[in-house]
Amino acid sequence: MLIDWKNIALQIYDKIKAKVSMMDKKPTLWAILVWNNSSSLRYINQKRKWAKYTWINFELLELSEDITEKKLLKKIESFNKDKNISWYIVQLPLPKHIDEKNIINAILPEKDIDWFHPENQGKLLIWDKSWFIPCTPAWIMEIIKSEDIDLVWKVVCVIGRSNIVWKPVTNLLINAWATVISCNSKTMDLTSYTNKADIVVVAAWKPNLLKENMLKKWWIVIDVWFTVVDEIIYWDADTVNIDKAWHKVTPVPGWVWALTVAMLMKNTLKSSKEQQ
Amino acid sequence: MLIDWKNIALQIYDKIKAKVSMMDKKPTLWAILVWNNSSSLRYINQKRKWAKYTWINFELLELSEDITEKKLLKKIESFNKDKNISWYIVQLPLPKHIDEKNIINAILPEKDIDWFHPENQGKLLIWDKSWFIPCTPAWIMEIIKSEDIDLVWKVVCVIGRSNIVWKPVTNLLINAWATVISCNSKTMDLTSYTNKADIVVVAAWKPNLLKENMLKKWWIVIDVWFTVVDEIIYWDADTVNIDKAWHKVTPVPGWVWALTVAMLMKNTLKSSKEQQ
Repeated sequence: MLIDWKNIALQIYDKIKAKVSMMDKKPTLWAILVWNNSSSLRYINQKRKWAKYTWINFELLELSEDITEKKLLKKIESFNKDKNISWYIVQLPLPKHIDEKNIINAILPEKDIDWFHPENQGKLLIWDKSWFIPCTPAWIMEIIKSEDIDLVWKVVCVIGRSNIVWKPVTNLLINAWATVISCNSKTMDLTSYTNKADIVVVAAWKPNLLKENMLKKWWIVIDVWFTVVDEIIYWDADTVNIDKAWHKVTPVPGWVWALTVAMLMKNTLKSSKEQQ
Repeated sequence: MLIDWKNIALQIYDKIKAKVSMMDKKPTLWAILVWNNSSSLRYINQKRKWAKYTWINFELLELSEDITEKKLLKKIESFNKDKNISWYIVQLPLPKHIDEKNIINAILPEKDIDWFHPENQGKLLIWDKSWFIPCTPAWIMEIIKSEDIDLVWKVVCVIGRSNIVWKPVTNLLINAWATVISCNSKTMDLTSYTNKADIVVVAAWKPNLLKENMLKKWWIVIDVWFTVVDEIIYWDADTVNIDKAWHKVTPVPGWVWALTVAMLMKNTLKSSKEQQ
């Protein structure tokens, strides 16, 4: 079965909208976009669209593609100081002449609603239920939740080792008492690990890495992203050939955008309520 | 074979001493101790002893057991502001009326040489070679290094899920390209995971959890700490009965103190060199 994340996303948006509709002061999401030809524009448009859908105000500062890192840092400083701005995002990716790490470090941790700042990542590591979760790990946990899975005693195999997916997801799974097997592209005999797991989360950016014969029955496969080779899209999981009668699989890209952005709107609503 | 960590620790101390002896301005380690009947005094004495051994200055502020959290926070603020103090530790555990989390959060991240502050833990999560590693995870990696093990393609089973050991160790192992299996006290059929691994790190505080029949040959067992039940000390690994002809095992407590403190002195020396 393909996991119906359009439905999962829409349910979340409708819940957010219902809550926002009862608020006198609607939450606002501030965003900084540095124009460039990459995917940042597509992301921002998704955010604008879903903010509108959920009645969340969306305030966008658009900056020219050739802005220097120094000038961008000054803008961030002014956002940090501005008492009217409670939280904001800087849309990634940034143009190549700007060091993303410097930008993320400059955002005031308490205004960093993407939860990318090292201090916020550390809070995630240490774990406190009152804190946020970055959007990609959040939707992975949301899918697990939507399948009504109690992670205690469950075995999850995570393939990949990126900062934005692997580490927070692993920490969240451990916090939920799952047994976690972390594999990477150098792991030998991958199948001996994947066939032990109830859930596999794959974010390895390796076309068709995960195949039907590597799965045990009644598995859930959460595929995070795809790779494009010669204009053909490949998923990390061999979604086409995996038997959907036996396994639950997330299709990507499909509604992954919507689900990621849903988590951002959820964070925006949550911060707004905490502030009021 | 028992891993000779007395020897590992002494080698590290002698290296530090050799480096410090060539420095015009010796490094200083500042420490705040709140008196109480727990193990904090024993820790501090170890730190004093090994600072002396390595020629590192040791400056201790001793505070009464009944200091309020508010007053302790004020002391920390003054340490944060004092330009002569480059880095310091607050010895844990603290008396029960003080919330350790508030204290750790109050230490200025750039003066936090224990690397406990959320921002520093986040940096560890994101990983940058220029940053520190907290002492317990650091010595676990040091033992692996002392055995000349390249972690690529290796399988490590970590049993436990604590913030101070499990999470940073798992992150460090992943950064070194190991395949990591994270188990906890609720993991079913633990043996099916332990017998896949080349190295097991156990910090589960469960007496004799790890037994000979759960190990494959040529294993390294790193036991982090022990439990006392009716005044008898039990290790997480059944160290007595594990066949030392086949496995390498760390004995605890033994020189675990010395090795932990060695990591602190290493951090002190490193910060001092960076500052100069």
